[in-house]
Amino acid sequence: MLMNTHEARLDALRKELKSRGLDGFVIPISDEHMSEYVGGYAQRLAWLTGFGGSAGTAVVLTDAALSPAAAMFVDGRYTLQVRDQVDGRFYAYESVPQTSAAEWLKQHAPQGAVIGYDAWLHGSKWVEAADAAIAAKGGKLIAVETNPIDTVWEDQPLPSPALAFVQPDALAGVSSEAKRAAVSEWLAEQGLDATVVTALDSIAWLLNIRGADVDRTPVALSYVIARKDGTAELFIAEEKVTPELRQHLGNAVKIASRDHFVAGLDALAGLRVGLDPQSAVAAIFERLHQSGAIVVEANDPCVLPKAIKNAVEQQGHRDAQHRDGAAVSRFLHWLSVEAPKGTVTEMSASDRLHALREACGDLRDLSFDTISGAGPNAAIPHYRVSDESSLTLAPGSIYLVDSGGQYPDGTTDITRTVWVDTPTGAEPTAEMKDRFTRVLKGHIAIATAVFPKGTTGGQLDVLARHALWSAGIDYAHGTGHGVGSFLAVHEGPQRIAKPAGGQAGTMQDLRPGMIISNEPGYYKSGEFGIRIENLVLVEQRDIAGMEGEYYGFETLTFVPIERRLVDTALLTPAEIAWWNDYHAQVHAIIAPQLEGEALAWLDAQCAAL
Amino acid sequence: MLMNTHEARLDALRKELKSRGLDGFVIPISDEHMSEYVGGYAQRLAWLTGFGGSAGTAVVLTDAALSPAAAMFVDGRYTLQVRDQVDGRFYAYESVPQTSAAEWLKQHAPQGAVIGYDAWLHGSKWVEAADAAIAAKGGKLIAVETNPIDTVWEDQPLPSPALAFVQPDALAGVSSEAKRAAVSEWLAEQGLDATVVTALDSIAWLLNIRGADVDRTPVALSYVIARKDGTAELFIAEEKVTPELRQHLGNAVKIASRDHFVAGLDALAGLRVGLDPQSAVAAIFERLHQSGAIVVEANDPCVLPKAIKNAVEQQGHRDAQHRDGAAVSRFLHWLSVEAPKGTVTEMSASDRLHALREACGDLRDLSFDTISGAGPNAAIPHYRVSDESSLTLAPGSIYLVDSGGQYPDGTTDITRTVWVDTPTGAEPTAEMKDRFTRVLKGHIAIATAVFPKGTTGGQLDVLARHALWSAGIDYAHGTGHGVGSFLAVHEGPQRIAKPAGGQAGTMQDLRPGMIISNEPGYYKSGEFGIRIENLVLVEQRDIAGMEGEYYGFETLTFVPIERRLVDTALLTPAEIAWWNDYHAQVHAIIAPQLEGEALAWLDAQCAAL
Repeated sequence: MLMNTHEARLDALRKELKSRGLDGFVIPISDEHMSEYVGGYAQRLAWLTGFGGSAGTAVVLTDAALSPAAAMFVDGRYTLQVRDQVDGRFYAYESVPQTSAAEWLKQHAPQGAVIGYDAWLHGSKWVEAADAAIAAKGGKLIAVETNPIDTVWEDQPLPSPALAFVQPDALAGVSSEAKRAAVSEWLAEQGLDATVVTALDSIAWLLNIRGADVDRTPVALSYVIARKDGTAELFIAEEKVTPELRQHLGNAVKIASRDHFVAGLDALAGLRVGLDPQSAVAAIFERLHQSGAIVVEANDPCVLPKAIKNAVEQQGHRDAQHRDGAAVSRFLHWLSVEAPKGTVTEMSASDRLHALREACGDLRDLSFDTISGAGPNAAIPHYRVSDESSLTLAPGSIYLVDSGGQYPDGTTDITRTVWVDTPTGAEPTAEMKDRFTRVLKGHIAIATAVFPKGTTGGQLDVLARHALWSAGIDYAHGTGHGVGSFLAVHEGPQRIAKPAGGQAGTMQDLRPGMIISNEPGYYKSGEFGIRIENLVLVEQRDIAGMEGEYYGFETLTFVPIERRLVDTALLTPAEIAWWNDYHAQVHAIIAPQLEGEALAWLDAQCAAL
Repeated sequence: MLMNTHEARLDALRKELKSRGLDGFVIPISDEHMSEYVGGYAQRLAWLTGFGGSAGTAVVLTDAALSPAAAMFVDGRYTLQVRDQVDGRFYAYESVPQTSAAEWLKQHAPQGAVIGYDAWLHGSKWVEAADAAIAAKGGKLIAVETNPIDTVWEDQPLPSPALAFVQPDALAGVSSEAKRAAVSEWLAEQGLDATVVTALDSIAWLLNIRGADVDRTPVALSYVIARKDGTAELFIAEEKVTPELRQHLGNAVKIASRDHFVAGLDALAGLRVGLDPQSAVAAIFERLHQSGAIVVEANDPCVLPKAIKNAVEQQGHRDAQHRDGAAVSRFLHWLSVEAPKGTVTEMSASDRLHALREACGDLRDLSFDTISGAGPNAAIPHYRVSDESSLTLAPGSIYLVDSGGQYPDGTTDITRTVWVDTPTGAEPTAEMKDRFTRVLKGHIAIATAVFPKGTTGGQLDVLARHALWSAGIDYAHGTGHGVGSFLAVHEGPQRIAKPAGGQAGTMQDLRPGMIISNEPGYYKSGEFGIRIENLVLVEQRDIAGMEGEYYGFETLTFVPIERRLVDTALLTPAEIAWWNDYHAQVHAIIAPQLEGEALAWLDAQCAAL
């Protein structure tokens, strides 16, 4: 019989730890690639504890008699959710970054404890910090040979067997051969012989391949070792490799089984090997050291060129956005008809939107789990609807929907916040309109920003917040993240956010070709939430009399913004002109794709303010 | 006979280096306190080379037959000036940060060279970097016992013998005893026994004393060792100490001769001593290590509280600004009458302004050398007028004046850019008005900014630049620096500037009580320069519905801004309202101090736009 309670799972884990002589074990949400989203086989924390969030860590001490004997570490997004999902009798709730698993072990692990961790799931910086914390109590941190969760998890899914497939040059814009040539040039410049590419989206970009092994991100589980001579080895499960893929990769890319990756590392003995501590797990660093390779910390050479979209990728994004915008517009029209009846739920809305995207014909997957938030649920920025949490969209309230699609030519991500009308046409409150309009002013300030070469997202961030700050309010998340081309919806290295917030990427200068989201918001806890998100593309600007190189943003997303929530008295003439121009573009792009009532709805939404 | 050519001085230095067995020597502009401005005795670079800028370094190799055998390192501000003042037959011209003295030595010093430096004039980070660069050529960097320039500089001035004097509590707002108690609390928190305070303005602030040993900054050459028990030792030349000063310092501050400072360091053997690498020279680090003290790198504990002005200092600043504003207003009125005649020069204008400040009765010194720039000279942001460079203010051109005064109750710093009228009332060009108005928009954006607790100057900087960026232009300097209270006109730790520019202080959050300049500009090389500078004070804001703590700026400087250069079509209604409010305040504060024609002029300048 399967263990079907989290208590039984925890007991089984503790028995296993005891049999291995471990006094505790650390369970993160991570995979061998330090992916943001991980496959089912790697959902060890969810299996053990029931926690369903996307970020968190548990520490389990072997001796259940200790108090506390286990703890869950989550950030502010999951403070409430962890209490719902994880049994407080077995796990203490802890908040990061106020504390950390390492800090907790320093305080609560028995003197001289031996704590296990899986070196394939942690970065080496984490290992250094945890090791130092545990050593302070005379204990030690040791890497396990096999993950003890895998031993006791009877029905653990196998890694996905999905086929990998070719991303044709007609969509990728640049051949894999040319990308590998650029990497080999970079290796020569850095004085390196090879680099190990472990980030799944980097591998997908470098080889122009895609896969279906991870929810929401079209990547294939694999590793690459790229060499100075332009050749590469791809380590991937053999069942994923089609003859077409083999032909696409050609002779310069040797295909090996994913199981041979460690042997591939050993073969780098004596070579200078670049490895990115942002994406390579501790086990790879360790193995290369053991193999006798000379390990050099270096950026993953795919990250920056992947972020700078070529002309083909840029056009792909525009095309995908035009189709996606029509689907979202159809959805908003449907919502405007159905929601005032009081029969639409967060779940049914989310399903309807998914179906309308499917109807485009090109959808491969959503780009992330739809955030469909009614009333107070919209005030939770990273809310994820479930059957249990799903609220009905109350007429006379605010509804927020943040969603996106994976299309072969581009990845989309859009947020709209709408007023759910009442049969009598009740108006939003003055506070709602004030807050919505200030968020809109921030959105327009980013959309219209002009800035010199060298400017970072950390510098621009204040433009998105300034109208809110003037009213003594703010939002506790970043303003913009990079977006992939039929790849990860969160992609580095660029980011628009407070530089003091410690978020990676705010010191990266924005370069023409980069795509980034523009998504200021405002959240009134327990009442409503507002976010307006379009994707924008960094472009060169030509300005009479300009001194040096200047850039601006081309907006890529075209869907009407809720006019019922705008207080026009707060807008400047320039802001009103932006609104009118934007909606004229929305109309030009979306109207040809709609008809009947939906078209009439679009006409009304796109009329000048 | 004195050596009166720079060639002879260089020869004499080389002979001295040879006699000491050195292959070269490094000459920075610095003193034992790493001061921004240094006394006459420490102007070694100017004496040796003739260079009159405020920042630069020379390297002299002993063997004059080498090519190059010496080099001057200056930043972009001094690229032209160094060529005017320093003889290119003897010194190669080099630019920092593109290269550095250390980098140059790596390339040009003979293999195995022994290069001398004065450890009392360099920070330890510099020593580490230079040492590594020279070691790469098998050479070494050694600290000299005495500075070889001092040996050959026959008429080197003695350090200033000026008396130190008391800054009364009525102006300082907080007693030295209370400040020392706060430092001793900080020492306890940090687990330190003592700290060595070497920055002259920190010493002045901590002990509530002032001096006249350094041009433009009212400080006394001295060192302090402050201890956990609240006592301190002040090392200062005995002739500076008056009975009044001795009484003011009381029993808890032991006064010792400045010559005994090294003995004072030796007495710290066995203690944990905090030392700030930003302000303590390498020699102090070295000596403490030798003495057996445990040296801990720690911030100078005076820097942050010195920057956060107390209520008395804030009021002192307002009072000083009101008097200073009247002097500058009188000057601008005089200029409006005299300059159109074509008889005013940069020098005579600067002298007149100085005289009008003197006439206030309270002026102790200027706070920096006046930047008085006509036409193309105004396009040099850090221009310093001399008899040779002084241009006549041409009717029909732009004149920029950046100046400030040291008053017992506050330090001022103001820039105004004015149109020099012609007898026929010619108008500025459309370009001049466009640029001036964009600078003004940036100035207003900072003046009216509202921001949450924790916001840094690096975040706000873009607000000052955005209107310029929109036109494809920018300025190559920071937007704002901290200002002392009857202390240094450039004071840390806060700063408004591009965070990517590497300028210290942009990551310091702005706190209520901090004073900072607001000085965006625009410079058209060879034609004109524009800068508008007021000082502002960070203050708490109370906003209906605010969530958390919010801050804004109180403007402290009150002098009319040039209305002839404004293109009102570029201003928003909110910006025009700011202008009108500001000038109503200027009128309320300055009008009672003026009379006759000057008052009539002020009335006209302060009329609504």
